[in-house]
Amino acid sequence: MSKQEKYAIGVDLGGTNVKVGIVSQNGKIIKKVSVETKAQGGPEKVIQQIKKSIDEVLNKNELRIHGIGIGSPGTVSTKKGTVEDPPNLPGWGKVNLGKIIQKEFKIDVKVENDANAAAIGEMIFGAGKSYESFVMVTLGTGVGGGIIYNRKLFCGEFGAAGEIGHISIDINGPQCKCGSFGCVETYLGNSYIVKRVQTELENNQSSKIWQLINNDLNLLTPIIIQTALEQGDEYAKGVVQSLGKYLGTALASVGNCLDNGTFIIGGGIGGFGTPLFNSVKETISARVLKPLRKRIKVLPAKLKNDAGIKGASALAFYK
Amino acid sequence: MSKQEKYAIGVDLGGTNVKVGIVSQNGKIIKKVSVETKAQGGPEKVIQQIKKSIDEVLNKNELRIHGIGIGSPGTVSTKKGTVEDPPNLPGWGKVNLGKIIQKEFKIDVKVENDANAAAIGEMIFGAGKSYESFVMVTLGTGVGGGIIYNRKLFCGEFGAAGEIGHISIDINGPQCKCGSFGCVETYLGNSYIVKRVQTELENNQSSKIWQLINNDLNLLTPIIIQTALEQGDEYAKGVVQSLGKYLGTALASVGNCLDNGTFIIGGGIGGFGTPLFNSVKETISARVLKPLRKRIKVLPAKLKNDAGIKGASALAFYK
Repeated sequence: MSKQEKYAIGVDLGGTNVKVGIVSQNGKIIKKVSVETKAQGGPEKVIQQIKKSIDEVLNKNELRIHGIGIGSPGTVSTKKGTVEDPPNLPGWGKVNLGKIIQKEFKIDVKVENDANAAAIGEMIFGAGKSYESFVMVTLGTGVGGGIIYNRKLFCGEFGAAGEIGHISIDINGPQCKCGSFGCVETYLGNSYIVKRVQTELENNQSSKIWQLINNDLNLLTPIIIQTALEQGDEYAKGVVQSLGKYLGTALASVGNCLDNGTFIIGGGIGGFGTPLFNSVKETISARVLKPLRKRIKVLPAKLKNDAGIKGASALAFYK
Repeated sequence: MSKQEKYAIGVDLGGTNVKVGIVSQNGKIIKKVSVETKAQGGPEKVIQQIKKSIDEVLNKNELRIHGIGIGSPGTVSTKKGTVEDPPNLPGWGKVNLGKIIQKEFKIDVKVENDANAAAIGEMIFGAGKSYESFVMVTLGTGVGGGIIYNRKLFCGEFGAAGEIGHISIDINGPQCKCGSFGCVETYLGNSYIVKRVQTELENNQSSKIWQLINNDLNLLTPIIIQTALEQGDEYAKGVVQSLGKYLGTALASVGNCLDNGTFIIGGGIGGFGTPLFNSVKETISARVLKPLRKRIKVLPAKLKNDAGIKGASALAFYK
C-alpha cells in the first residue's frame, strides 16, 4: 500500500445494502463498510447513510483519493450526476446524487447505472482488461447489460444503452414488467427461473431438487438449482442449458447488431458455471452471422464479491 | 452547376445492375449510367464494367471530383477496400476493389457495404440530415441495416455492425438462410412475404389481390400487395400491419440495446407507406423501455430512385 498508488472510493447503492469501499488502482479493496439500506427513510436518509459510510472508510487514512464512483439502480444521467426512480428505493424521483456527494467531500464524483458500472469494472479490473470491446451481462433479479466499445462505455443517444435484458426473443412470449413481451429477462430473471422450476418440478419427481427443498416448493432459489446441478441432477442440467439457449439467442441478436465477439457474464446465476457458459456460447456461435462465428468468446466475470464496490470505484479510474 | 461545388462519383454495385453517377454535394445526380451486371463473367468482367461506366460519366466534364464511393453487397472491409463473397456475384472470393479503382482513376476510393452506404446517404442527403444518431433499415430481398451514431457509421468490432435483418424475434421461428431462427428477415424479406401471402390467400377469397394476379398465385409480388393495400383491401392491410409488428419488435430490441430513438426505413417494401410506418412506430413505442417511448420517430427514407448511387457517392463526402 504505497502512498504513490492511486485510490478511489466505490459506492454500491442498492435497495438492500449500501456498500462503500476504498479500492486501489489495482482493484484491491483496502477498507469497506456495508450497511442495510434504510430505503423507507427516502433519499435523505439513504444519502446520509452514504455520506456516513464514506466518512467511515476515509477515517484517518492518508491515501491519495482520486475520486468517488457511485453505481446506482434506476435511470442515471452520467453527465448531470442524477439518479431517477431507482427501483426498491421509494420516494427518490430525480435526485442529483453526484452534486450532493461532491459538495460534501470536494472530490470528483461520477455516477453511473449499476450494470454499466459492472461493465466498466470488468474492463478496468476484470475479465475485460485485455479486450477493446465486449458486452457485459449481469444476471440477477433482472438481466442487466453494458456495452464497452473501443475501451469506452457505449452510452447511446440518451445515455441508457445496453439494456440487454429487454431484448425480446419471442414476439409472443410472456409479458415482461417493462411492458414488452418475451424479453430475455422473463426467462432468466431470478423470480422467473424459480417460478418456471416450481411449475415443472411436478413432472420431474426424480429431481434431486425435491430433497434439497424438503419437498417445499417455497424454499426453491437459484442457489438450490445450482446445488442440484453440481450434484449431477439431470433436470437441473436441462434447465440451465435452456437458460443458456435463451440468453444465447438474445446475445446472437446483439452480436449481429453490434458485430462484437466477446461477452462477459456475471451476477448470481452466472454461478451456474460451465453448463450455462457452454450453452450460451454454442447458441451464439450457431446463430450469429458466419464471419462472427469463430470470434465468439463467452467469459465469466472476474469481479465476484464486492463487484459493486469495485465497479463503482472503476468509474473514478476510467477516463 | 458551379465549378466551386464539389462532386463525387457513386458506384452502386448490384447483382442485377451496375449503376454509376456523378453526384453534387447537394445530392443531385448530374449524369448517370446503368448497365446490366455481367455477373457470370466473374470479377474481371464486372470490374471492367465499373471502370467503363466511370469513364463514361467522367467523359468531357471539368467538375472537381472529390472521390469515388462504392456500395457493394457482401462483406466489405472499409479499411482495406476489399469486397468478399458478394451474393449474386459468383466467383469473387475476396477482391480489393478499392485499390483497383483507385489505381485506375487516381482518386480517393471508399468501399462500403451497400446497407451502410444507404445509411450514410440518408445522413448526408436524406431523412437523417438533421439527426445525430439513427438506425437505417433497408427492406428488399433481404433486410439490411446501418447504424449512425453521433454522425458516424457505427462499425462494430469487426466492421460489420447493423445487421438488423438478423435480429431474431422468435427463438423457435422459421429457419433463416443465415442459419439462425426467427430472424426478422424471414418475415419481411420479399420472397418470405410473397410465400406467406400465397399460402394465406386460399383462406382470403374476397381479397382484391386475386383479381390483381388474375387468380395466378405465381404473379404475386410485393407491388401487387401494395396495390391492393392502396385499393383498401382489408386482407392486404392486415398483412402490412403484421409486417410492421414484426419489424417493430426487432427495432424495439435494437432501441433497448442502442438507446436510439430515430429509425429510417427505405427500400422496396418501405412503399407500403403509412400503414407500415404506423404499425412499426406503434410497436416500437409499446415495446421499448419507458424513457425511450416518447422519443421514437419512424421516418421514410428520402433517397428513392438512385438511392444506391447517391448513398455510394455520400461515402466520398463523408469524413
